[in-house]
Formats: sequence, C-alpha cells, structure tokens
Amino acid sequence: MSKLPHTGTTIFSVMSALAAEHKAINLSQGFPDYDCSDELKEMVNQAMQQGHNQYAPMPGLMQLRTAIAAKIRSLYQQTINPDTDITITPGGTYAIYTAIATYIHPGDEVIIFEPAYDSYIPNVLVNGGKPVLISLSFPEYRIDWQEVRRKITPRTRMIMVNTPHNPTGSILREEDMAELEKLVAEHNLLVLSDEVYEHLVFDGARHLSVLRYPAIYKNSFVVFSFGKVFHNTGWKMGYCVAPEHLMKEYRKVHQYLCFSVNTPMQYGLAEFLETPAHYLELPAFYQQKRDYFLELMSGSRFTPLASQGSYFQLMRYDQISSEGDKEFAVRLTKEFGVAAIPVSAFYHDGKDDHVVRFCFAKKETTLEQAAARLKKI
Amino acid sequence: MSKLPHTGTTIFSVMSALAAEHKAINLSQGFPDYDCSDELKEMVNQAMQQGHNQYAPMPGLMQLRTAIAAKIRSLYQQTINPDTDITITPGGTYAIYTAIATYIHPGDEVIIFEPAYDSYIPNVLVNGGKPVLISLSFPEYRIDWQEVRRKITPRTRMIMVNTPHNPTGSILREEDMAELEKLVAEHNLLVLSDEVYEHLVFDGARHLSVLRYPAIYKNSFVVFSFGKVFHNTGWKMGYCVAPEHLMKEYRKVHQYLCFSVNTPMQYGLAEFLETPAHYLELPAFYQQKRDYFLELMSGSRFTPLASQGSYFQLMRYDQISSEGDKEFAVRLTKEFGVAAIPVSAFYHDGKDDHVVRFCFAKKETTLEQAAARLKKI
Ligand SMILES: CSCCC(=O)C(=O)O
Ligand SMILES: CSCCC(=O)C(=O)O
Repeated sequence: MSKLPHTGTTIFSVMSALAAEHKAINLSQGFPDYDCSDELKEMVNQAMQQGHNQYAPMPGLMQLRTAIAAKIRSLYQQTINPDTDITITPGGTYAIYTAIATYIHPGDEVIIFEPAYDSYIPNVLVNGGKPVLISLSFPEYRIDWQEVRRKITPRTRMIMVNTPHNPTGSILREEDMAELEKLVAEHNLLVLSDEVYEHLVFDGARHLSVLRYPAIYKNSFVVFSFGKVFHNTGWKMGYCVAPEHLMKEYRKVHQYLCFSVNTPMQYGLAEFLETPAHYLELPAFYQQKRDYFLELMSGSRFTPLASQGSYFQLMRYDQISSEGDKEFAVRLTKEFGVAAIPVSAFYHDGKDDHVVRFCFAKKETTLEQAAARLKKI
Repeated sequence: MSKLPHTGTTIFSVMSALAAEHKAINLSQGFPDYDCSDELKEMVNQAMQQGHNQYAPMPGLMQLRTAIAAKIRSLYQQTINPDTDITITPGGTYAIYTAIATYIHPGDEVIIFEPAYDSYIPNVLVNGGKPVLISLSFPEYRIDWQEVRRKITPRTRMIMVNTPHNPTGSILREEDMAELEKLVAEHNLLVLSDEVYEHLVFDGARHLSVLRYPAIYKNSFVVFSFGKVFHNTGWKMGYCVAPEHLMKEYRKVHQYLCFSVNTPMQYGLAEFLETPAHYLELPAFYQQKRDYFLELMSGSRFTPLASQGSYFQLMRYDQISSEGDKEFAVRLTKEFGVAAIPVSAFYHDGKDDHVVRFCFAKKETTLEQAAARLKKI
C-alpha cells in the first residue's frame, strides 16, 4: 500500500528533463546558472585538505551555528542559543520534513497555503497527517485570515507559511504577522516557516522572519537554506531554528534520520558567513536580476505579476493563449525554447489561473536570450 | 506529545563528548582517525571548480549510479538497472530511515535483531510501526531462526538484517541466507539489509550481500555507505539499492525528504569508483588493523570475541570487573583514558553481557597507545 498513491515525479525534475531534451533555456527549476563564490569553494577545499572529513557533531558544527546566531541577531533582532536552538540539515526541504515527522501524528491537521512548494503535502501525508488547503487570493496571493480561522478545528496542529513565497514572489506583511500572532496564541498552533529565500526581498521591503516576533517564534520552526542564497543548490545545506523545547524533539528525529551533515561544507560556510557582506549584498544582487528580466520582457505579450521576493517571476499569458498552463509550459519549452513551471502544479487540484513561473537566477546573457525568444510569441 | 519519549542523546555523541572532555583516546564512535584519500578530495575539489554546484538529479548522478552498478555486478553477480534501482542518499542512516518511512504504516511490525544500531528502533517508532525485538545469541551473536518464525504475525511487514554486524562484527552465513530466503517467500516480508560495512570482511570470508540472492533481493532494500568504507564519515554519502517496484515508492518519499544529494561529492565518488582497487584493497587494509589491535591486546585482561567483519571489536571484561558495561565504559574513559561503547546501549532493555565495543579504524600509533593504556588495567 503506497503512502503517496497520487504522487508522480516532481514538476522540477519533469520540466528540467524536458528543457534538456529540447535544448531549451531552463527557467523552470529554481537554481542559478552561475557558480557560487570561488572563495567559498576554496574554504571547503581547505577544510577537506585539513582533514575535516569525519562526522560533524549531530546538531552541526559549533562555528557554523555561532555564525548563524550572529546573523540572526543582527538581521532579526532575536537572540538564539546556538547550542540548543539551531540544527544544520542537508537542505531546507529536509529541515521541513523533519519538523513534520517530529510533530505530526496520524490525523493531525496542517494548514497549507496554495500554491505550495510541492513537498509540503506529501510530507504531511507520509506522516499520516491531513493537509488542510487554503488558496491564496489570486492575483495578489495574499492570505485570507478569515478563511484560515474558519478552517481551524480541534485537530489543527500546525500552520505552514512561506515568505518570500515560492512560486509567487509574494511576502508576508506586518498585518499578516499580527494575524498569525493572534492565531498562534488562541489555538496554540505550531508554525513551520519556510524562509529559504530570506535575503531575496526587493524594493526596500524587510524580510519579516517569524524570528522577529517572540510570540510567534516560541511555537515555530524556521527553515533556512544556504544553497538558495549562496548559489550552490547542489550542496544541499540548510538549517532549522526553533526554541529549545521544540528543537529537543526535532533533534531526536534528526539524529536517527541522518545524524549529521557534510563536515567540510559546514567549515566552508562557517568561514564564509563571517563576512556579513556575503549576505547583505544579496537583495540588491537579485533585485537587479528581477528588474533586468522585467525590462527585457517589457515588449512581450506576457503580463508580469508583482514579485516582491524570491528568485521567481510569475507571468500571465492570457494575451497569448487560452490553453491550460501545463500545456502552455510544455509548448513554451518545445516550440519556443524556454522552460517554465506551470503554477497549477503547486495546487492539489490543479487550479489553473493561466500563470507560469520563470526563475530569474540566471546570467544576464541567459535572461537576454530567453526574453528574445519569449518576445517572439 | 513526543513520538520518542524515551529517546535520549545517541550513545555515539555521549561517548565522543566524554572522550573529548577527558582527553581520552576515542575508540567509541565509529570513524577513522586517519584521513580519506587525497586523490578523492582532489576529485571533489575539481568538481566544485568545474562548477558542479547545482542540484544533482533526484536519484543521484548517473555516472555515480553506473559505477555502483558495475561494482555490484562484479562483486555480487547481480545486474541492477542504475536508472531505476539505485538512489544516492545523504548517508546510510538516511537510506534506512527512508525505506521505513516509505513502507511502514502505523501498526506494522518490523523484526529487529539486538544488539541493534541505535537508529533502527526510533525509525520504526517515528513511523508508527512496532519493533519486534529478537536477541542474537550471546556470545556468537547468531540468529535463532526458530525464534524469528515464532515472532512472525500477520502484521509482520519487514525484517531488518545487518551484515557485517555493528556492534558485534558477526556476519551472515549461507545457512542464514537460506533461512531468510524461505521466510521471505513464505510471508512475503520486506527485507531491509544494512550492509554499510560490505568491504570490511575478514579471514577470506565473502560478504553475503542480499544482492546475491534474487529470491531475497526482489523484496529488499540494500543500504550502503561511502563514508564507512572510504574513510570520510563526515561527507554523509550513501545509497540504497532496490528493485524498481520498491524503489519507485522509495523515491516518492526521498524526492520530498531531501530531493537530492551533494553534487560535487557525487562527482568525486563517481570518479574514485572507476578504480576497483579503491574498494578491493579494503578487506586487507582493515583485517590488518583488526589483527594488529588483537595482537597488541593479547597481554591484557580483556577477552576478545570473534570479529569477522566491520571495524569493531567486542571485548569481555569479566576478568577485570563485575560492574555494568555503562559504568565500566565511563570508568574506562575517565580513569584509563580510552573510550569504548557499552554494548548494552544497543538493546532496548539494556541487556548487559559485560561487553564493550572498540573501533579499530585508527592509526597504528593510536591503537598502540590505547592498548598500552588498556593493558595497565
Ligand atoms: C528541489 S528542486 C526545486 C527547486 C525549487 O525550489 C523550485 O524550483 O521551486
Ligand atoms: C552516526 S554516529 C555512529 C557511527 C557508527 O556507526 C557507530 O559508531 O556505530
């Protein structure tokens, strides 16, 4: 008996394979086509050379956790204890899974907003939980907190939020945090906050990490990624931050799930994080890419939706075609040589607003070539 | 509500921390105190330099899976399809967890032999399964197949085996495989075979991988580790092999648990595996260490049990003390400066045969110093 009878291959693998097959420019799966820092690679290499190749401590290398705590203090004004409140994980996806595996019992309900990163629902199902799905309002993709309240039951255990949001690029605002704070207090909910795009916030907006809100954070797991922000998605390095009482249980599962995480990569990242410029420069770096992509696309028949964060840009194509977004994304790849993600893939019921997602974490020349092709449509 | 209310910190972290605190020679947690191959490190470095730093394919790099299939064909005479039957994982522990998460539903029974690697029971419990525990016969640590048959019920779903066996160093023999084969056929059991020490088999014995037995393999997940055999436990790289129909479900869980595994490390390992000598030399390399350790210890009051595989050596200490093995292991660390693992930590009920485990994956000088200290007792 399958725990995931309706699960196929993730859309990211499907579209990347299709892009490769048709030699299309791949703006589908979210990863950069430029390399990570040479300095960082050399730091990892040095760690290997120095013989740091055996097990790291189970929660992660202390230097790395200390550097993370310093970053969190400076960016989010929250003091966390690196000894008890941070666990290094093999990527953000793993960090999310582990929180769910630790706290979701069969029958527990988990509130998930759609469109949703495609691991959330299967993660809940594998652990016997019940996803309770709420659509973000199209086309702003904001949370209707009244609807959230209506969906809460005595079995509601956890609410998952994601800011900056994949795939839409929307971000949570102060009003959202106020609502979330009330909800957590009233129903004693756990919060799983996916913040893997934390540094990719545009137009002067602040990233509202749940770490800024003690009354939310006390019930929260906050998930971050190195790969997403330092341009090395293939290293599969991330971390989870949670208050000690929650992290204690989380680590029980983690210590028997993978025990510890790649040691030389942890040394390299610890050293790299010592220079705050390495993350402080990221918002401007990505905003420039977003702005350039929008500028290049301005003469096209695609209509951009607002992207306030992440490295994704949604585009409506209703001026081009009335076909479904999956068909359209496939045709875009095969006929026009640019791969994108159909946003309906992020809805359990395939809700289709005729929108596709482009990843703009690409070199300028890649964006130029892609835009040239897309403008021909 | 905790899923693991009785779980504390893994004994490996506890003893390694105690060893560090008391500056003891650490023969407890299983990892080498020598470095992995410089050539291999350079291969990983080259992969990073060449820009292989983004997501690997979800099941793993094809080069690496092809190299693994070739190794399996030559060592175990089994032809497996690298496209469908191998998944690269962040370590062997993760590979074991994922098989359990994929196939164990609440209430399913899983047969586990004790002493058992300490992740097995929590892995089953987190997924709502019921561990059915069977003690290996002391002091040979062999399986009583009659007892296994008595413990099978309609809810028995899986049997876990581990050869070479951690912590005892026992290995499965032809008679065991014949029994296992019958059992699998009669009860249609799944087999989870932990073979992370596959190359560490001594005295000319053959490693009896379940991959050699098509009638067992058809129901099996077989778990391997790079870290355990190539001296880089901190890289957290391993893999799972299973027939396509089982691997298909496994990958559904894996693709949403961590999606993919460290890319440059996969490139490095793929290249390293191209030279069969890199694994063919391992049995002799480790046998020499075991033999040397036994020789050094021959004048001591410890009594070695037979170790046919793995990099662990059990020792009885009944000629030294009648105290429990946990107390003895702590005293060994604090007073005599050598850390070992008390074998009772591998039993759910703390069954104590007054045996401790030493890891001999250490430099000759380390073994010499440790033996000198141990002989003073
Ligand atoms: C794990 S592959 C998906 C990468 C990603 O986060 C995305 O494309 O949304
Ligand atoms: C994951 S830490 C434990 C290492 C090991 O396999 C052992 O010491 O038995």
